[in-house]
Amino acid sequence: MTSFTYDGLPGRVVFGAGAARTQLLGEIDRLGAERILLIGTGKEGVIGARLCAPFADRMIATFTDVRPHVPTEVAERARAAAEHADLVLSVGGGSTTGTAKAVALTTGLPILAVPTTYAGSEVTPVWGLTDRGRKTTGTDQRVLPRTVIYDPELTVALPVDLSVASGLNAMAHCVEAFWAPQRNPISSAVAEAGIRHLVNGLPTIHAAPSDLAARGELLLGAYLAGSAFAVAGSGLHHKICHVLGGAFDLPHAQTHAIVLPYVLAYNLPNAPQAGDRIANALARPDAVTALRELGEKLEIPKGLCELGVTELDIAAVGDDILAIAPADNPTPVTPAGLRALLHAAWSGSDPSRHTT
Amino acid sequence: MTSFTYDGLPGRVVFGAGAARTQLLGEIDRLGAERILLIGTGKEGVIGARLCAPFADRMIATFTDVRPHVPTEVAERARAAAEHADLVLSVGGGSTTGTAKAVALTTGLPILAVPTTYAGSEVTPVWGLTDRGRKTTGTDQRVLPRTVIYDPELTVALPVDLSVASGLNAMAHCVEAFWAPQRNPISSAVAEAGIRHLVNGLPTIHAAPSDLAARGELLLGAYLAGSAFAVAGSGLHHKICHVLGGAFDLPHAQTHAIVLPYVLAYNLPNAPQAGDRIANALARPDAVTALRELGEKLEIPKGLCELGVTELDIAAVGDDILAIAPADNPTPVTPAGLRALLHAAWSGSDPSRHTT
Repeated sequence: MTSFTYDGLPGRVVFGAGAARTQLLGEIDRLGAERILLIGTGKEGVIGARLCAPFADRMIATFTDVRPHVPTEVAERARAAAEHADLVLSVGGGSTTGTAKAVALTTGLPILAVPTTYAGSEVTPVWGLTDRGRKTTGTDQRVLPRTVIYDPELTVALPVDLSVASGLNAMAHCVEAFWAPQRNPISSAVAEAGIRHLVNGLPTIHAAPSDLAARGELLLGAYLAGSAFAVAGSGLHHKICHVLGGAFDLPHAQTHAIVLPYVLAYNLPNAPQAGDRIANALARPDAVTALRELGEKLEIPKGLCELGVTELDIAAVGDDILAIAPADNPTPVTPAGLRALLHAAWSGSDPSRHTT
Repeated sequence: MTSFTYDGLPGRVVFGAGAARTQLLGEIDRLGAERILLIGTGKEGVIGARLCAPFADRMIATFTDVRPHVPTEVAERARAAAEHADLVLSVGGGSTTGTAKAVALTTGLPILAVPTTYAGSEVTPVWGLTDRGRKTTGTDQRVLPRTVIYDPELTVALPVDLSVASGLNAMAHCVEAFWAPQRNPISSAVAEAGIRHLVNGLPTIHAAPSDLAARGELLLGAYLAGSAFAVAGSGLHHKICHVLGGAFDLPHAQTHAIVLPYVLAYNLPNAPQAGDRIANALARPDAVTALRELGEKLEIPKGLCELGVTELDIAAVGDDILAIAPADNPTPVTPAGLRALLHAAWSGSDPSRHTT
């Protein structure tokens, strides 16, 4: 019998090619903003400045000192820059949005986010700050942007490797949404739609990076993935990738693409309905094989061994993963089960043979 | 190329068999309520009184004078009863929720809704008031309940005919969500999930009214339909049924079930993707045939002629429908096209032959 609790998140999303050019001013007016702090770094800053030119009289400052993982001293400087602002306009990727969130966390200022990557964090209430190399994260509705403008045109120049990495992280969020701790019928429906758009967009972008329609599909998929994650949370796959990434400094796209089919195969026997819906969204009879095929199309290695990880390495991280493995994973995460999963992902053997 | 604007609605949903018994007090505490006005009429009032017994000390009044379509004088009396309240707890169907909304509209009081039917209005920001027989409706976020507790146990006693009528209205909202004016990828995903649950629940309830799992499926489907409608709005089907219902006082379930396949057939040539997704959710190769089959399982007549509508009647309402037909219906609503649609729905001829 179905039972769940779902906390719907407010927020306005405007999506469309050219939307940043044509709808930004209208959305700023909608929020009644007169004193705007722009946050955006490097190339993003240029995009931001161009977008803001038509209402230059309302811009009070531009903060460009964005750093990955939002160091606390950066957050403090951004908050100081926001002192007389009534809106934080972030134009950029995950770190830029993260800096805007750090400002909103203490000031309560509204955020209007214009993503230029496929991060998805612009639709989550999750913030993160780093103090002397130690990252703290939390959830607060105040950091959730009031309005997000998604414009695929702004993402066309994003390098293919970064695009694919973000897209595969988004795919993993959609797949994990089916067994994530706060899953519910809405987040599952959104995740299913996300998978459909991501699998439409990813192979095309790999082959033709400037295909605007494919960029739109990837951006839409990333938005849906962020929305599903925002309410459902994440699961075993992201725990594994977090530990692997931290231990061996692995490339994101490859790690996600390699590991995901094995986690899915591990969970399938106890999540058959999720498997059916994921397969359906991937438009293939079998979800594990479909994810593997997607990796092949994107020229992702089959096993972690091809990334320079040794058999001893992979055996050594098992305990770290076990310590943070979700208690309600569809298939209980046992030492032996996890060992087999990791070894298979390391060797690159056919994941569909590894359903427990 | 995809483009849309989506205004996400906040709100908390708690769903589960027994949830009203086990989680109501916790949800009231979560809202910090100490002075509660209960709204609920007749049998609902008894359910409400039983649910509120554990926190009787916080109940300041019970308003039972609920009427369909919320007459303004009823709204005034309910507002007076709410004078010292800090929460409106509505336990009942659409009219009860509507009365609570009328209170929230002018007082700003939060609503906790515990539906006992499959209305779906508890997740929409739409209110309605009737003044001397004239109905006014509007949209206001203040009337959107903060929390909704869905408990299938409370709906087990709802008569089959009412259950089927609500379920088919919900089905029509899900189908129409694919071409409704504010449609977007989120509302379409939610609608698709709604269809899946409704088609699971409806035939079982028709055959075995006290089947709790089927009641849960229908309630979940009605919730998803309400959520999809709340953001997407409705379309041609509901305009047709509104005019037919007003002109000939037709039974809701029959009208929805008869008309919907014809509207879908009319739109399909210009909404092929919607057709695929609806068929997929109905787990059949063809959506029009699947809806028709559902009607047969529910022993719904094939044509409006079986409800006592004459061929002259049906020809007479065409202009009224044309006057309010949506401008952006997938297949433009022409006088000839509408005439053919209505005549087919009247005669009950095979709708799959009527794709334009």
